[in-house]
Amino acid sequence: MLNKEKLAADLTAIREKSPLVHNITNYVAMNFTANALLAVGASPVMAHAVEEMEDMTAIAGALMINIGTLDKQWVEGMLAAGRAMNNRGGVTVLDPVGAGATPYRTQTAWKIINECHPTIIRGNGSEIMALVNANVKSKGVDSSAASSDAIESAKMLAKQTGAIVTISGATDYVTDGERTEQLTNGSPMQTLVTAMGCTASSMVAAFAAINPDPFEASLHAMALMGVVGELAAKKSAGPGSLLTNFNDLLYTITPEELINTVRQ
Amino acid sequence: MLNKEKLAADLTAIREKSPLVHNITNYVAMNFTANALLAVGASPVMAHAVEEMEDMTAIAGALMINIGTLDKQWVEGMLAAGRAMNNRGGVTVLDPVGAGATPYRTQTAWKIINECHPTIIRGNGSEIMALVNANVKSKGVDSSAASSDAIESAKMLAKQTGAIVTISGATDYVTDGERTEQLTNGSPMQTLVTAMGCTASSMVAAFAAINPDPFEASLHAMALMGVVGELAAKKSAGPGSLLTNFNDLLYTITPEELINTVRQ
Amino acid sequence: MLNKEKLAADLTAIREKSPLVHNITNYVAMNFTANALLAVGASPVMAHAVEEMEDMTAIAGALMINIGTLDKQWVEGMLAAGRAMNNRGGVTVLDPVGAGATPYRTQTAWKIINECHPTIIRGNGSEIMALVNANVKSKGVDSSAASSDAIESAKMLAKQTGAIVTISGATDYVTDGERTEQLTNGSPMQTLVTAMGCTASSMVAAFAAINPDPFEASLHAMALMGVVGELAAKKSAGPGSLLTNFNDLLYTITPEELINTVRQ
Repeated sequence: MLNKEKLAADLTAIREKSPLVHNITNYVAMNFTANALLAVGASPVMAHAVEEMEDMTAIAGALMINIGTLDKQWVEGMLAAGRAMNNRGGVTVLDPVGAGATPYRTQTAWKIINECHPTIIRGNGSEIMALVNANVKSKGVDSSAASSDAIESAKMLAKQTGAIVTISGATDYVTDGERTEQLTNGSPMQTLVTAMGCTASSMVAAFAAINPDPFEASLHAMALMGVVGELAAKKSAGPGSLLTNFNDLLYTITPEELINTVRQ
Repeated sequence: MLNKEKLAADLTAIREKSPLVHNITNYVAMNFTANALLAVGASPVMAHAVEEMEDMTAIAGALMINIGTLDKQWVEGMLAAGRAMNNRGGVTVLDPVGAGATPYRTQTAWKIINECHPTIIRGNGSEIMALVNANVKSKGVDSSAASSDAIESAKMLAKQTGAIVTISGATDYVTDGERTEQLTNGSPMQTLVTAMGCTASSMVAAFAAINPDPFEASLHAMALMGVVGELAAKKSAGPGSLLTNFNDLLYTITPEELINTVRQ
Repeated sequence: MLNKEKLAADLTAIREKSPLVHNITNYVAMNFTANALLAVGASPVMAHAVEEMEDMTAIAGALMINIGTLDKQWVEGMLAAGRAMNNRGGVTVLDPVGAGATPYRTQTAWKIINECHPTIIRGNGSEIMALVNANVKSKGVDSSAASSDAIESAKMLAKQTGAIVTISGATDYVTDGERTEQLTNGSPMQTLVTAMGCTASSMVAAFAAINPDPFEASLHAMALMGVVGELAAKKSAGPGSLLTNFNDLLYTITPEELINTVRQ
């Protein structure tokens, strides 16, 4: 079960400590992700040059690697950062965007898993299934599977890699391969704001920077994303306003509102 | 003349079929374009790595190539994707951003035209004129010519390349070299939201993914952009709110509102 | 002292002349920066390919170089553009994002200073201090120092480089090494909108494109950023709405409102 006191404490801790989150993320997501991290109280940095990966991971509280708009040069930066973070014993979150859509994406995700040993992997249903079963095809970067269809794949992936695996969707799941928790907040309109999932991965990294338990950090970050998404959607005429209201609410939400709205 | 029933049917078809639109676009446009495509009901993917162009075009309903922030590596991806899409007989839309501003842009646009044979070319007045007449200079990426000044150039470009050519501006024009249609919706405030034109090109690609007639697809996409821009501008204090209202209205507009507001 | 008549005249001049501002900026900032420049009346272009730097700087009213998401290929473009602009005697603004966070950033900023001789350098407190004192460490890209702590460093940097140096923060400072002016408008909420500082640098470039005095241009641009930020924050529930209201107000603010709200 989700511990509501710990959830509230983590939100407060992010606002007090303002952890530095190093993101190597896709071009589509960068602006929204940086704004969401600032709104919640964290300090984002986007950097991908091989020349500074060692130095940047050394000052970061957590690293988030997202392959959404990957290419050869960027993959070099991702691997350099992930290896450096792993060597330091720090936290890396992997977001395998579009795994299953092209072999290049699936292979790159596995290369990062094998060389960088991410602490947490967060994806949609299709992506998690595609990492486990090479025959699963994704439709671009949007999920063609329900998150619930991916639970067994997520457990297998967690056991195989040692990572906490999070599936986002209508219901969010967090598993370590044995224990699985779910969250049912959120709004379908969130799927119409680009990079909502990518931003969730960076939010997981922010929580993992202040909570040493990656299972809890994942669960708490997804709880915040779902609650804020749900509350923001209620005041939004469409996905344009949802983006604005989402960032406003990340800033204004109190720990009390968060724990009073979260549902499992 | 615009067929209003077909226009309404295309909007409905996008929402029902949610076509995958593969965008190789500029860094400025990516977020807005992805959000606009999601809001209207399409499924955007942004990908540019040569390694996955063959696989990504194979699952995409249409490809949009935009040279707004081009460089050598990206042009390789553009050419690989455009050739792959052409070999499959699929639809490619070219947006020659800044053609005429620098020789590099004009030459790259022509390289893409010659090697990838785009189905549709969409630009502003200056860009279309610069593709036809090397002596025309653009001022950066904003048009220094009225769209009406570019009609003859557009016809010549259509005849020369076999592409449908669309000029956006105060009046939008679509031509195949023989037949030319115009649309007069829109708001001057749209020119103050960056990447409005780039997003129009991706919208054209979304319509072309569900309508096999590229002339109709271009006309219908531009009709939607103009109508939504006009309605959104009416409720907007400035270009900041226009961006938000534009994405909201792409999501809420009904086929009836669309055909009742469109003007030729 | 700030000359309010000249401030008002500069805002009017930007709207009348719509100067072309060439930005080589980071991926996070591009969309907001382009929208802010359009909203105030300037014409932004983003371009970084070495192949077109000579041609693009030749048509630009000013160049802004921002190292926020630098890598080897981009640094080549930055140096090519900065050298070309310097050879033409044009204005270059440097934004040394994250100087002090990694040696790669500090070194690249100095390389650009030494090879391109920027007319204006704008950074936050940490960045300006790190350029002068290699022992100063930044926390990522957010400032860990108050702007007032950096005044002496700014003066030294101005004397050493010949550039006008601007520090943004709770109080903004502009110095040529001898004369120093300050501005006290703004809102703390502005620090929660990503790329607010990067956009300030591009705004400085826009003002420098129409005002030949780089000290005045810097002061006037920072005055506008502070006043608009302060007015926008008053109507904003959080950083999401602030972004929207900021771009709306850049478009609607009158020269009178600007000079009636500015404070030194």
